[in-house]
Amino acid sequence: MIVGTEWLVEAGECNENLLRDEQVLRAVFARIVEDLGLKTLGAPLWHKFGGEGGVTGLLMLTESHLACHTYPEYRTATFNLYCCRSRPEWNWEKNLGEMLGAASVNITKIERGDPRSAIRNQKTAIVGGDV
Amino acid sequence: MIVGTEWLVEAGECNENLLRDEQVLRAVFARIVEDLGLKTLGAPLWHKFGGEGGVTGLLMLTESHLACHTYPEYRTATFNLYCCRSRPEWNWEKNLGEMLGAASVNITKIERGDPRSAIRNQKTAIVGGDV
Repeated sequence: MIVGTEWLVEAGECNENLLRDEQVLRAVFARIVEDLGLKTLGAPLWHKFGGEGGVTGLLMLTESHLACHTYPEYRTATFNLYCCRSRPEWNWEKNLGEMLGAASVNITKIERGDPRSAIRNQKTAIVGGDV
Repeated sequence: MIVGTEWLVEAGECNENLLRDEQVLRAVFARIVEDLGLKTLGAPLWHKFGGEGGVTGLLMLTESHLACHTYPEYRTATFNLYCCRSRPEWNWEKNLGEMLGAASVNITKIERGDPRSAIRNQKTAIVGGDV
């Protein structure tokens, strides 16, 4: 039984300063929630690691959850968006290009609950040109 | 750059009453944290959906995060464990068999941060015999 869809997103070659800025990641979460019409459950959890460290965010949704972890030292951010109801595709490539300076964005989409946890599709986009 | 490993776990044919019991899911989280020597960051978020609904849990770790969603109506629970440092394998099959009555457990392991988000391996176990 498919109980939800999860998007695993890897954003590479980001601006490392943006990845250290909790407010920037909060803005990414807010845009995802608004654009997809998601409903939050309670307050999010945010943690900024010390010094040059990155940011972790977790947000509970009635539709499941949203998570991010950033690694400024590798100019990389990863996101999980898990939705138990059908939602349109968010434009990760364009939005993470604009908001984090990501130059590459990879998206893996997985159906959850399936005993074979089928990977529905996977794509890598090089951000540029149209951003 | 590989920044972490994520286990996506689908537990099927569970005992539906256990999937509605937040204390049972809290106990699963506690055992994972203890067995793998993980460090929690702040309090977890828990939500029990009304009536016959399931449970959602999110826990921030210094190593990244742990999440679960249960679907008693489908006798299914899903887990995400994301670790940014190397951890031993947890025995999902045996433990979820014992704690949730799961009769099948599927594990998908993904390296995060890799632009190709390589799926390292995937296995499905039928719980039985040795449990």
